[in-house]
Amino acid sequence: MNVLIVHAHPEPKSFTAALRDQAVNTLQAQGHEVKVSDLYAMNWNPVASAEDFTFRENPDYLVYALEQRLGVKNQSIAADIRQELDKLLWADLLILNFPIFWFSAPAMLKGWIDRVLVSGVCYGGKRFYDQGGLSGKKALVTVTLGGREHMFGKGAIHGPLEDMLRPILRGTLAYVGFEVLEPFVAWHVPYISAEARGEFLSAYQQRLEGLANDQPLVFARLAQFDEALYPL
Amino acid sequence: MNVLIVHAHPEPKSFTAALRDQAVNTLQAQGHEVKVSDLYAMNWNPVASAEDFTFRENPDYLVYALEQRLGVKNQSIAADIRQELDKLLWADLLILNFPIFWFSAPAMLKGWIDRVLVSGVCYGGKRFYDQGGLSGKKALVTVTLGGREHMFGKGAIHGPLEDMLRPILRGTLAYVGFEVLEPFVAWHVPYISAEARGEFLSAYQQRLEGLANDQPLVFARLAQFDEALYPL
Repeated sequence: MNVLIVHAHPEPKSFTAALRDQAVNTLQAQGHEVKVSDLYAMNWNPVASAEDFTFRENPDYLVYALEQRLGVKNQSIAADIRQELDKLLWADLLILNFPIFWFSAPAMLKGWIDRVLVSGVCYGGKRFYDQGGLSGKKALVTVTLGGREHMFGKGAIHGPLEDMLRPILRGTLAYVGFEVLEPFVAWHVPYISAEARGEFLSAYQQRLEGLANDQPLVFARLAQFDEALYPL
Repeated sequence: MNVLIVHAHPEPKSFTAALRDQAVNTLQAQGHEVKVSDLYAMNWNPVASAEDFTFRENPDYLVYALEQRLGVKNQSIAADIRQELDKLLWADLLILNFPIFWFSAPAMLKGWIDRVLVSGVCYGGKRFYDQGGLSGKKALVTVTLGGREHMFGKGAIHGPLEDMLRPILRGTLAYVGFEVLEPFVAWHVPYISAEARGEFLSAYQQRLEGLANDQPLVFARLAQFDEALYPL
């Protein structure tokens, strides 16, 4: 497999970075090829804007998705986007590796999603969910957070973590066609011992080694809806 | 009321900007004081990083929330964050005004959330949800999107929009104590007529004029959980 790890954490020595390194080592040891986009180290620009296009179909009014579609075709899309898009298209497995900020991704990573998942390639028209442009690829979300496991789930104070991650799991990854695997979660990270962190690293290694057998999460399929996208 | 509108759209002439202007005009006509943070126009920096602190408690290892807490106390937090935080504390009503990008906020706005909702002021320890640092204030999310209304809701292809917005409505705004009002949604915006857009603007004016009577959404309350945050 070709694996792209997109990593976003403001502290280079973070435990989230240790998970990234664990993934690199484990996957390489299995013979996979791994690329890492370390967004903070790359000084990634997370802001989707008119500056993402050297030529614009409509210079007077920006419709970002429309300019993306044309920009990829005409090679007028920003070089940093093109490079990330090429890595994404190369990958069989995408791993998003980040600390939970406000029950979602840091802006740095959100801006990778906003800019790199370009219309016309990753989705467009009726090409979304199981018909999405990236169908056939797998995605794994690996997160660290401060909360404890019992604070999440049905009836828990924050509700199920997968509900909080819905815009990423369903609205982003499943939307563009990925088979989305169950997230890997390291709980309570700022407060736990080195030993407990080591246990998360071991559990992550095991998870990655068995990834081929993972059953993806289940989301909407286009065949369940009519032409106008009303449920059948 | 003091009202802060945080607006994030890459196109200055967008319909989302028209909604912003409608809010400014309607609220001012009612005698409220309104401030606008136009994040693209301000060239806002959305990236939470070590550079947000002129002095650090721990220069060797960044724990962002911890440095926020100390940075506000010691006045060593970045000036742009301090300015936005002052506006936020001044406001009785916060309006987040944005186009849906990937079923959530553009990175530009996510980075306002990441950087401005500082630990120690907006939340911290047991001060969250109804006990959050911003309790007593109201928040309204006003969004534009490409999808049609029938694509959202129970059984619809994308599920309920409020489920997709959960990390913002519940995980962010309710978390820091806001009374969160039902979002105002303008559907299918890139594809509709000027007349249909005008109808959304009128509906928004009416909504804002009656805002005082709005019932907030219901979320978890700390009294429903024990000291360790297990449900009672």
